[in-house]
Amino acid sequence: MNGAKPDQIFEDESRLQLNDDGNLRHLLTLKGLDRSLLVEILGDAENYLTPTGGLPARSNALTGRTVANLFFEPSTRTRASFDLAGKRLGADVLNLDVNTSSRKKGESILDTIYTLEAMRCDIMVVRDASAGVPAYIARHVKDHVSILNAGESDVSHPTQGLLDLLTIRRHKGSFEKLVVAIVGDIRHSRVAKSTGWGLHTLGVGELRLISPPSMAPDPDEMPFARICDDLDDGLADADVVMALRIQRERISDLEGIPGTEEYFSSFGVSHERMKLARPDAIVMHPGPMNRGIEIEGSLADSGQSVITEQVANGVAVRMAVLDRVAKSLEGH
Amino acid sequence: MNGAKPDQIFEDESRLQLNDDGNLRHLLTLKGLDRSLLVEILGDAENYLTPTGGLPARSNALTGRTVANLFFEPSTRTRASFDLAGKRLGADVLNLDVNTSSRKKGESILDTIYTLEAMRCDIMVVRDASAGVPAYIARHVKDHVSILNAGESDVSHPTQGLLDLLTIRRHKGSFEKLVVAIVGDIRHSRVAKSTGWGLHTLGVGELRLISPPSMAPDPDEMPFARICDDLDDGLADADVVMALRIQRERISDLEGIPGTEEYFSSFGVSHERMKLARPDAIVMHPGPMNRGIEIEGSLADSGQSVITEQVANGVAVRMAVLDRVAKSLEGH
Amino acid sequence: MNGAKPDQIFEDESRLQLNDDGNLRHLLTLKGLDRSLLVEILGDAENYLTPTGGLPARSNALTGRTVANLFFEPSTRTRASFDLAGKRLGADVLNLDVNTSSRKKGESILDTIYTLEAMRCDIMVVRDASAGVPAYIARHVKDHVSILNAGESDVSHPTQGLLDLLTIRRHKGSFEKLVVAIVGDIRHSRVAKSTGWGLHTLGVGELRLISPPSMAPDPDEMPFARICDDLDDGLADADVVMALRIQRERISDLEGIPGTEEYFSSFGVSHERMKLARPDAIVMHPGPMNRGIEIEGSLADSGQSVITEQVANGVAVRMAVLDRVAKSLEGH
Repeated sequence: MNGAKPDQIFEDESRLQLNDDGNLRHLLTLKGLDRSLLVEILGDAENYLTPTGGLPARSNALTGRTVANLFFEPSTRTRASFDLAGKRLGADVLNLDVNTSSRKKGESILDTIYTLEAMRCDIMVVRDASAGVPAYIARHVKDHVSILNAGESDVSHPTQGLLDLLTIRRHKGSFEKLVVAIVGDIRHSRVAKSTGWGLHTLGVGELRLISPPSMAPDPDEMPFARICDDLDDGLADADVVMALRIQRERISDLEGIPGTEEYFSSFGVSHERMKLARPDAIVMHPGPMNRGIEIEGSLADSGQSVITEQVANGVAVRMAVLDRVAKSLEGH
Repeated sequence: MNGAKPDQIFEDESRLQLNDDGNLRHLLTLKGLDRSLLVEILGDAENYLTPTGGLPARSNALTGRTVANLFFEPSTRTRASFDLAGKRLGADVLNLDVNTSSRKKGESILDTIYTLEAMRCDIMVVRDASAGVPAYIARHVKDHVSILNAGESDVSHPTQGLLDLLTIRRHKGSFEKLVVAIVGDIRHSRVAKSTGWGLHTLGVGELRLISPPSMAPDPDEMPFARICDDLDDGLADADVVMALRIQRERISDLEGIPGTEEYFSSFGVSHERMKLARPDAIVMHPGPMNRGIEIEGSLADSGQSVITEQVANGVAVRMAVLDRVAKSLEGH
Repeated sequence: MNGAKPDQIFEDESRLQLNDDGNLRHLLTLKGLDRSLLVEILGDAENYLTPTGGLPARSNALTGRTVANLFFEPSTRTRASFDLAGKRLGADVLNLDVNTSSRKKGESILDTIYTLEAMRCDIMVVRDASAGVPAYIARHVKDHVSILNAGESDVSHPTQGLLDLLTIRRHKGSFEKLVVAIVGDIRHSRVAKSTGWGLHTLGVGELRLISPPSMAPDPDEMPFARICDDLDDGLADADVVMALRIQRERISDLEGIPGTEEYFSSFGVSHERMKLARPDAIVMHPGPMNRGIEIEGSLADSGQSVITEQVANGVAVRMAVLDRVAKSLEGH
């Protein structure tokens, strides 16, 4: 399924995320979420960051609630991050290996959801390879259920977008004057789209999407961004540089895709290349990394890299989102 | 292994389930369990139903105890239901993916059990494709261990039977005058057998087992039931209609099995067909459903359907059973 | 990768395990650990043994901490044992199925570790098929992280060694006069090596390693042991007899490996063979067992067998180790 969706659908999805009183009920996409809401979530997440030298932040905000992790695509980091976020808020967490069970027996995805809903899983964290699945589910669940998109085809990965925003904000303060360069397989990356829309909403100075032509996004998808096929050009004076891996699992015809060495020499983010960016530029990557392909290994481990901070911020952002949607479910 | 077992074995199994003082120690089969005990368990389960608008029922009844989910056949719903039931009672829950590990290394099932017993897993929830495994295990465990059958070949699935009984009772009150029709692959269904025996014990008015001849049960298995190969005939004036999926994974020779469309037209439970039943008849299905094969999709979603209530009642029934067997283990 | 490592590496690993103040920070190998520390851990473990008739021992020592089980080789018993040990100490436990996820996407093992570290997994329990992986990881983690080796190629399995030591000590008291015979595939067994080195450190009277020549250890690996290819000879007057399974998954060329029956008749530990040992000799096996191959089934179930005690002691030993390393992390 192609991830591109008409704007009308995105507007509907964005509205679908909010309760009548404007509170966050589901998290499906960053596209169309208000700036003020984004800023509030980032503020909440700051409170869940682990203090230096201390144990991870905890609360009882979700005690008595059940979070179900429903990953129809394999995941280590996002699944683990939601798992820990739920447990540290006191929730019961149910991890479902949905590949090996009900789907084999022919059950539809909605029937799996209705089953979990009936078991009183209040918050369902869903990853799926098909576009539109999280919103489709959100349209069908009962009032006491919240759906969180944990990765949707090449379309959306909103908690990853939020953690990127938080990481950038913690290093750079405000977004207005920033130049952010995202480098790599933009076309097949849900991260690029969620982070891109989030940056746009927060008023980023300039967003550059740098890739070989075969991995360039549809120009209508992020009309506010500058699309660019030359890395040197794209990195010039950048404040933030994010490298993305090639999403081979989402590319049906690998023919136009450059080889590893050729790719690194043209689009690999390296120490050498980073000289073109601002001296205080930070280097990001959503992981998992392929060192030596889209990013030089020693750069990922250098002081410029904030890659592990992204991971740490991911748990905090997910705690903030879980806490917020749980509040919107109260009384249901 | 053929699931049919001689009556003597069932009598032994039934007795094996109880402590010397008559309390439930294991749950292996509903066949032979006393009516009074069934009624007590259903009563307990009522207390674990989730109040409208509230969080799921919880208690600390199993704090300090460990529940091990040992599923040798894949499962989403039953595994998740026991997992949540255990966690909501305060137990530590251990989920074991037993397909990929010890059995590969050649360990016998009893040695796996002895290992878990030594780790102080007090309650083991066992699903296995072979008949007799739960009782076999129950005969070998120590005094501090309880075995709960979570699905045994085509023989028995007692907690599913209990949740069906609870669902029917909540809608219909008493069983004496009820006509219950179970439709589909009776022969290979452990659900039909557990629900059927439970209904018999509770004094159901009439139990009809409706299927094509290739899926009809052995007439000696539920001698109290009326076996029937015509759906219209079987549904006439029924109060409760339960559709079952075809258990393709348990059918070695699929030759006599009708095709999908043919099956739906002859044995699919549909709005049209339900006109033959009583106007207030309820529609049930143990899940996972194959919509358009054994049940019309829109009927499953209609007001007549109590399918998601079955799932909700499943968690309550499992909490009731866990709580009850844990009490019988006290002092061991 | 061949498991044999030069002595210098083992000395480094052994030192790497301790904090500057001599406290246990990681558990990588028993080789080189001080006798006093081994004795302290065994003493702690005694406190975590389950009292007769009571619920399993619990504490809140790890409340707020996260234990990640990172098994790159399949495991039921060791994974379950660490899972329960962590939960019974109040930790959040994260179980990662690492075969099906990040590694597929090309991520290096260190990047997986850095990710978990950033999520504040404080204690990582690692099993890997390659020698050197746990120490390699331990050299790269931050101050707030502890690495526990849960099985490393054919090299080391220190918590298994500790539980064997505890089991022997509880039955035999002191080690000085004991004759311990380990029988089977010594060459490919990480258990033999950890238990062997632990016994040596605790001053065992005599350690005999009995196997067919194709499974004999490198004579330099445990220079203090007597290597023996005759079972009758090896069992004579033994106080402790431990049978090991043939680690077929680690043997690249199965040609020199005897057949099942031939193996049992030459190296199977049986009632008959045990007559050669001391009358009060105990029989051990780390599991999973292949009954009728390396051990006679009825012997494993007899009063001489302490095999299930080993499993019970395993949870206690892991609780003791988790508690100890958590203490060494305090303030980080």
